Amino acid sequence: MKRIKLTVSYDGTNYSGWQIQPNAPTIEAELDKAIASLTGENVHVIGASRTDAGVHGKGNVAVFDTGSTIPADRFSYALNRYLPEDIQIQKSEEVDKDFHPRHCDTKKTYEYKISNTEFYLPQERRYSWHVQAKLDLEKMQEAANYLIGEHDFKSFASVHTQAETTIRTIYSIELIAKDKKEGKDYQGEIIIRVKGNGFLYNMVRIIAGTLVGVGKGRFEPQYVKEMLEALDRTKAGETAPPQGLTLVEIQY
Amino acid sequence: MKRIKLTVSYDGTNYSGWQIQPNAPTIEAELDKAIASLTGENVHVIGASRTDAGVHGKGNVAVFDTGSTIPADRFSYALNRYLPEDIQIQKSEEVDKDFHPRHCDTKKTYEYKISNTEFYLPQERRYSWHVQAKLDLEKMQEAANYLIGEHDFKSFASVHTQAETTIRTIYSIELIAKDKKEGKDYQGEIIIRVKGNGFLYNMVRIIAGTLVGVGKGRFEPQYVKEMLEALDRTKAGETAPPQGLTLVEIQY
Repeated sequence: MKRIKLTVSYDGTNYSGWQIQPNAPTIEAELDKAIASLTGENVHVIGASRTDAGVHGKGNVAVFDTGSTIPADRFSYALNRYLPEDIQIQKSEEVDKDFHPRHCDTKKTYEYKISNTEFYLPQERRYSWHVQAKLDLEKMQEAANYLIGEHDFKSFASVHTQAETTIRTIYSIELIAKDKKEGKDYQGEIIIRVKGNGFLYNMVRIIAGTLVGVGKGRFEPQYVKEMLEALDRTKAGETAPPQGLTLVEIQY
Repeated sequence: MKRIKLTVSYDGTNYSGWQIQPNAPTIEAELDKAIASLTGENVHVIGASRTDAGVHGKGNVAVFDTGSTIPADRFSYALNRYLPEDIQIQKSEEVDKDFHPRHCDTKKTYEYKISNTEFYLPQERRYSWHVQAKLDLEKMQEAANYLIGEHDFKSFASVHTQAETTIRTIYSIELIAKDKKEGKDYQGEIIIRVKGNGFLYNMVRIIAGTLVGVGKGRFEPQYVKEMLEALDRTKAGETAPPQGLTLVEIQY
């Protein structure tokens, strides 16, 4: 038996998220099916991040054990032949038998994409949050800086979080503005790139919703400090919609 | 009566192209339907560029005449309520009665997107051409430079072109490489941005296919000069697939 680590990318549009559920398509279920079709083994992959319905993945991680003689680095090619077109393994490799994708130190990078335009661009509708109101990027970055570091992010977690502790460390929050044009034809794509040692349930989407609230002028940047101290979900901003979110990378 | 100019964006994935055809969904037909629903008038829009099946639009242009009292700049909002989610008017304005989107000098900008990665990214599958072989960007740019300027592009047009002349002027061809990483995990998105005074049928897709041929080492950059001089479609490279192509902007 050997343990295989998969780097998994997917378009989350047509899935009810990562985690297996009865009577709903999930990424995890598709991976289990593809492995069973390839190896004949009945396995359940262990995922690093259980992304929500509609959230996308570029570099999520899953592991499974197999007795198959297929070389570790060939599983990517072999499994992609059995997977639907909206899931693709980007890499496969052998890892130690005790490697667990959730029980070790990681750096996770998420990106949240906002289309800050008067009308949405149809080709972006499944991959970004359309925000019509003009956003003040400088204030958003100022607000973001209060979130960097080790904090209790209770105010920025869904009340349904099952985490034992709500303390997390955010290493960086970058705001990247693309295709900026001046004047009334301004078309703006904004990416919020967040890197941390782990994230609570809905945390990145609540950060994105809060920063958009700041960008719109609903909150002053300094108020984000009070949001953190309140340890109360109702004090932070709205939860941004899922389609703007992508799990980009997990570093072990 | 007044003449309205629409700036139209669309995800071309589910359409048989711009131009109306019996028993097939087209952008033109959806626009005519939306205008009829809004104004009760039976009109046929005149499009600037009849993009092919699967090709996308950010800034295509259509005009129509109307007796409606709706202010010109409100048509965008009003029509978007009647259009499917994969078509959005970005702007509406009144133009002179004799304005014709095809019978005047324009600068058109197209972008062709290539995912130059070992495995494709699912969220890009409808919007880019996945090319697995490593591409030599410097050679591609060198080849592209031979195409800039006024030339007879007969070798770079579908044999089905109905244009009276195959002479066109290309103002610029930029190769933009994004997300570049070194080593075996290289993931590259390449955008070929082409600006010209007009393009023949399939011309941008044949340019993209030819540049990819150069990038793979199938053609030397200098050979592109011979392709032009041959005035023979069979001498140029393959026609790149439609989903990588987007009509970005038309300047009048």
